[in-house]
Amino acid sequence: MYELITKKKKGVELSTEEIKYIVEGFTKGDIPDYQMSAFCMAVIFNGMTDRETSDLTLAMAESGDVVDLSCFGDKSCDKHSSGGVGDKTTLIVAPIVASLGGVVAKMSGRGLGHTGGTVDKLESIPGYRTELTPDEFMSVSEKCGLCVCGQSGNLAPADKKLYALRDVTATVDSIPLIVSSIMSKKIAAGSKNIMLDVKCGSGAFMKTPEDAKRLAEGMEEIGKRCGRNTKALITNMDVPLGFAVGNSLEVIEAIEVLKGKLCGDIREVSVCLAAGLVANLKGIDTESAKALCEKAIDDGSALSKFRQWIALQGGDVSVIDNTELFPAAKYAYEIKADTDGYISHMNAEKIGLCSCELGAGRKTKTDIIDLSAGLVLSKKTGDFVKCGEEIARLYTNKEDSLAKAEEVFMSALEFSERKPEAAELIIDKVE
Amino acid sequence: MYELITKKKKGVELSTEEIKYIVEGFTKGDIPDYQMSAFCMAVIFNGMTDRETSDLTLAMAESGDVVDLSCFGDKSCDKHSSGGVGDKTTLIVAPIVASLGGVVAKMSGRGLGHTGGTVDKLESIPGYRTELTPDEFMSVSEKCGLCVCGQSGNLAPADKKLYALRDVTATVDSIPLIVSSIMSKKIAAGSKNIMLDVKCGSGAFMKTPEDAKRLAEGMEEIGKRCGRNTKALITNMDVPLGFAVGNSLEVIEAIEVLKGKLCGDIREVSVCLAAGLVANLKGIDTESAKALCEKAIDDGSALSKFRQWIALQGGDVSVIDNTELFPAAKYAYEIKADTDGYISHMNAEKIGLCSCELGAGRKTKTDIIDLSAGLVLSKKTGDFVKCGEEIARLYTNKEDSLAKAEEVFMSALEFSERKPEAAELIIDKVE
Repeated sequence: MYELITKKKKGVELSTEEIKYIVEGFTKGDIPDYQMSAFCMAVIFNGMTDRETSDLTLAMAESGDVVDLSCFGDKSCDKHSSGGVGDKTTLIVAPIVASLGGVVAKMSGRGLGHTGGTVDKLESIPGYRTELTPDEFMSVSEKCGLCVCGQSGNLAPADKKLYALRDVTATVDSIPLIVSSIMSKKIAAGSKNIMLDVKCGSGAFMKTPEDAKRLAEGMEEIGKRCGRNTKALITNMDVPLGFAVGNSLEVIEAIEVLKGKLCGDIREVSVCLAAGLVANLKGIDTESAKALCEKAIDDGSALSKFRQWIALQGGDVSVIDNTELFPAAKYAYEIKADTDGYISHMNAEKIGLCSCELGAGRKTKTDIIDLSAGLVLSKKTGDFVKCGEEIARLYTNKEDSLAKAEEVFMSALEFSERKPEAAELIIDKVE
Repeated sequence: MYELITKKKKGVELSTEEIKYIVEGFTKGDIPDYQMSAFCMAVIFNGMTDRETSDLTLAMAESGDVVDLSCFGDKSCDKHSSGGVGDKTTLIVAPIVASLGGVVAKMSGRGLGHTGGTVDKLESIPGYRTELTPDEFMSVSEKCGLCVCGQSGNLAPADKKLYALRDVTATVDSIPLIVSSIMSKKIAAGSKNIMLDVKCGSGAFMKTPEDAKRLAEGMEEIGKRCGRNTKALITNMDVPLGFAVGNSLEVIEAIEVLKGKLCGDIREVSVCLAAGLVANLKGIDTESAKALCEKAIDDGSALSKFRQWIALQGGDVSVIDNTELFPAAKYAYEIKADTDGYISHMNAEKIGLCSCELGAGRKTKTDIIDLSAGLVLSKKTGDFVKCGEEIARLYTNKEDSLAKAEEVFMSALEFSERKPEAAELIIDKVE
């Protein structure tokens, strides 16, 4: 390992065998943390070639269980978002794609964040079972082309161990290391088609379009090198996606989109992501695929796929017909504007913090999420508000969190006299 | 610590308090190895300012015992060599300086290497005691201005711990880290005047004059910032210093120099190093100091100081009068030239390895040194040899090491038909 750290320090490219040796040794515990962290810091400065990055990705993907979706041929589809505030696109993209013949057999994480992960969100549907046996997982996927369950503990354990180390040694912000971390899990998850949504802006890890593009290109390149049809969108996360932030609140919003009742950014991003996968499945161009996706919403086939899926995983489908049946938070609180003007900026990250304050997210791994907590925006960037008018509604079961949450929310807002220019929603794409 | 790694990664200068925090936390074990190694790798790439380096040096110096030599005022002198093959200059410099009014009260290390450290070499003198109590150390120093004993276990423990980590994480080769490692021990050792001998060439850590100069300037700057009169010479280590390599063999050679019987490179370097210290002590220029040092050898005062010192530490002075009384190795073996020609190059590092092969050095901390083993060169770079003529004589107690040792020795030599240009012995100086 000493030699390999030295090589990376000097900027010499490592061989496939050398990278395998590092990943295997580190996972087994033969290579100590202090050598691995020095290696990662050398990568921060000297980077990795695409070949090295794909070798690292594959070695980490192969460090644990690999989901075998080969029975679905080229139809298996996965979607990954680099994390955004109010991002419930999986709940919309998956049924659209499944209704058009794709198979979205997805193991999804929980993780830390402003709200829970997709699996947490789905648990807000009464009865929905996220813990499935491998047989149940395959059976649901075969029956309706759509299954989302909790992640196996042993998917890319090398990445898990490495990420924990990078997280405490200031070695997170390296494109090759981020790429291999994300893609190793996607490769191990087994899907042939991968659609990536790289968020960019105040609510995202990547703050500039340039950085987001570099990450997206890196992931696309590595996905292809690993034999997966990989595409990426770079989407705006300067403002939350949609209006709802919180677990059941986001599921409700996703249902509204699938019912065709809600348009705007959330529908647009979802359709574009779904279209990338559908274009692969059908061998058509993205514009035609987009039309098919719009139609799947408009004719109700995506919603009916959603209902079939939820039922197969034990969920109570009556909440789909009537979203008022979702368990509600005890306290609702209206935030009102204290001034007249256009909302010129809405810091997505702070909106996320506000929702976390209300109980919707985890600050530590052992925190218990309040599935009904969160917030729903009434106004977003570019809207004009009058003093006293409602901007958002907060939901929580902890009454004493409201004051702090309101303060955080207000700190996210900037007002101006003139209407701000509308920001591009889909900033760029890589395919 | 995460923040501090990030700062260094971004090239932001750390404050005195931040560097103290790192050194104290690491020494206590509060900062784990994996964070410290990532930090060191960031230093490899982004370096440290002189201010940071002197703060690091002081913090490491203060991490354990600090030797108090204040009773000697401005007279205390120390000499450090960055490690060379056949370097016995301490044994010559110390008595010269002490005979001219300096106080060389020195704790010296053993360490790994081609031969032992100064303390190992001195132990080849029958009866010489290297383990002294603090009182004995001060008393010998006061009586004769010269004492060399083994190093306290708790001198700069932060450096000891950090060096061990750097050694396995490929983070050794950073000028600020090397400077602070060496200088922290020198500062803790307490002397007011410090003379550094930075070796340069095939037998040294620094291979080029430019690298050696950078290290020398770094140490001089940091020494001054820490309140010590610090100077440095950069000397050639492309060829072993003197003729003898091995513990008792080097002591014998040092005695020959002090007796005025041996001139050449070893005397010249020793006199120049001593002169740097004497110039400080007397407030005179280096040339005048050099003349005083030459005189101290020629009039026998340095030798008589040597004898007084050895006796005070329990050594048998009869070996000084008759060096044939030193315990001899069982086997002596003559290496003969297999060709006619000038020796155009003699790789000092390989000569060192040859001596180690014969038993003179330690490969691991627990190896026991054979104090009588080693080699004595008969010819050096620039000399003409005839086929069959003796080039060197090997000494060992392990007969079976001779074949390998001879092979290593021969691989160190290059021959040419024309006399090579003589290399500069003193390459540069920093003061």
